[in-house]
Amino acid sequence: MTTDLDGLAERLRAFARARDWEQFHTPKNLAMALAGEVGELVAELQWLTPDESRDPGPETLSRITAELGDVTAYLVRLADVLGVDLVAAAHAKLDAGERRYDPARYRGSARKAPHLPPDAF
Amino acid sequence: MTTDLDGLAERLRAFARARDWEQFHTPKNLAMALAGEVGELVAELQWLTPDESRDPGPETLSRITAELGDVTAYLVRLADVLGVDLVAAAHAKLDAGERRYDPARYRGSARKAPHLPPDAF
Amino acid sequence: MTTDLDGLAERLRAFARARDWEQFHTPKNLAMALAGEVGELVAELQWLTPDESRDPGPETLSRITAELGDVTAYLVRLADVLGVDLVAAAHAKLDAGERRYDPARYRGSARKAPHLPPDAF
Amino acid sequence: MTTDLDGLAERLRAFARARDWEQFHTPKNLAMALAGEVGELVAELQWLTPDESRDPGPETLSRITAELGDVTAYLVRLADVLGVDLVAAAHAKLDAGERRYDPARYRGSARKAPHLPPDAF
Repeated sequence: MTTDLDGLAERLRAFARARDWEQFHTPKNLAMALAGEVGELVAELQWLTPDESRDPGPETLSRITAELGDVTAYLVRLADVLGVDLVAAAHAKLDAGERRYDPARYRGSARKAPHLPPDAF
Repeated sequence: MTTDLDGLAERLRAFARARDWEQFHTPKNLAMALAGEVGELVAELQWLTPDESRDPGPETLSRITAELGDVTAYLVRLADVLGVDLVAAAHAKLDAGERRYDPARYRGSARKAPHLPPDAF
Repeated sequence: MTTDLDGLAERLRAFARARDWEQFHTPKNLAMALAGEVGELVAELQWLTPDESRDPGPETLSRITAELGDVTAYLVRLADVLGVDLVAAAHAKLDAGERRYDPARYRGSARKAPHLPPDAF
Repeated sequence: MTTDLDGLAERLRAFARARDWEQFHTPKNLAMALAGEVGELVAELQWLTPDESRDPGPETLSRITAELGDVTAYLVRLADVLGVDLVAAAHAKLDAGERRYDPARYRGSARKAPHLPPDAF
């Protein structure tokens, strides 16, 4: 995976600056834009079975990839505006998840553990 | 920004493997988990004005950072399962955005251009 | 189904008025609140298979029902603030859907028809 | 507001039956479709200020109304498939909200009360 998040953040910053769109790029507005793009991503997968979604075929995968690109762009822009380190924030949540979900106890039980989902990865 | 997305993807892979949760991590399910986390992120910002959201104070920022961590974790896990390069996908969309939105013509006009939003960054 | 949407809208109006929360109930903010609640609803279903989701058991169904209540409350409040008739708006989209998706042609093909989803019901 | 939710549910049922789409209309899939439509609704409002969103002008209002129609259709279809009474569920959450948020204490304070949002209306 390409991993230059700083380079992407810088390009998004220049994109907004060149169009004088920084005024619209508040965290509130960017979170809405992110939600809109995630909605488009979800729509691409809504009628597929879970198994079909693993191997959606080239056309659907190409549309999914485009939506993932939009989601990533808004997420990185939002984090940049707020000064948040996304990868560090994810590792912090994973630290908590590893403490909370003992592998032996939760083995294969994602579906049965009530409310395991939201923060469990 | 920490930029080791491969390291994060690998840690998420190991996390799922250790708990036998790979069976639940279909793209369909992960897209839903991503939508759930983005919903929590949006909820943190819903009653703030756009200006307030730029400087939400330490407590709210800490909750927002935690949600951004969850969003990033599910996004990277989803991309990893599908074999998609998130940063490359974002750059591809930015390429298109730069061609589509001439800086001179769209300067300061995010709000006026109908339907500019969804793919415009 | 109870169908007094006007009574629900009126109760929500009184609830907001009694707390002086009308100032926060802009369409923008309410749409974000709606997105947050839909995120919680989606999270309840994310690890279930489609078949399991048809019969989720009493505990999960009770949590889903609570989320559907939140979603309905924010949707009706948003429509009330904007002066939109939700049921009429849905019928208008169904009129279009019936014209667009000839039953003979689209029979059983939701998954195959590319981009059929978003507006197809 | 038109309030015949049963009539709408019945029309959606017939629409799905005529196309043999009942097989795709699991609660899981319908919740995803709902999330997709809410994403489109949020996208219509993302660059507007809260004040602008109160009076978005005829063109934007017409697009918002169409999205509200889609959201309503999928919400009613989802509730119908699960056997949930949406209006009763909303009233139950309002009962809880009225007990939880004493008008005198929470007057005008939506923004200050931490985590008031999600279930507060």
